[in-house]
Amino acid sequence: MIKVVAKGYAQEDKVNEIIEICKELVELTRKEEGCISYELYQDINDSTILTFVEEWESQEALNKHMKTEHFTRIVPIKNKLMAKPTEINIYNKAI
Amino acid sequence: MIKVVAKGYAQEDKVNEIIEICKELVELTRKEEGCISYELYQDINDSTILTFVEEWESQEALNKHMKTEHFTRIVPIKNKLMAKPTEINIYNKAI
Repeated sequence: MIKVVAKGYAQEDKVNEIIEICKELVELTRKEEGCISYELYQDINDSTILTFVEEWESQEALNKHMKTEHFTRIVPIKNKLMAKPTEINIYNKAI
Repeated sequence: MIKVVAKGYAQEDKVNEIIEICKELVELTRKEEGCISYELYQDINDSTILTFVEEWESQEALNKHMKTEHFTRIVPIKNKLMAKPTEINIYNKAI
């Protein structure tokens, strides 16, 4: 199992639009083979911080996800509304 | 439900020691009331990045956690072995 944390920084006036755009991405991604969980979170102290927390069965499943039609179509649209690049970390469980 | 992502940066030669120290913290925290999940992850590309991903039933439960004997005892020991301050974000689920 691998965990992904993708921390994004939205433009201040685009937060709700980004969340709307991400709904389709989340819905379709949750149906993918190898996707254990895929959730979008909003920071309680800074509403412009939007972070995906994801669990995948394998690196292969994650790689496939990043080549899907919905990922390659929706993520570039979302990224145009972000204030700076998303910080992505991929993790193995330590404890 | 709230999600916590606490991203820590270990000193290079202290990574394994930190993981060992955190085992007791993880074990005791998982027994706390209001703790849904509490896991430590290690970045697959940079082994010095050690990140807690946590789920709590409420902000109250998280506040109580940070006052427990095990938290106030173990976290300062761990922090002395880190390279820089841990970045903590607290989230609500957006999708």
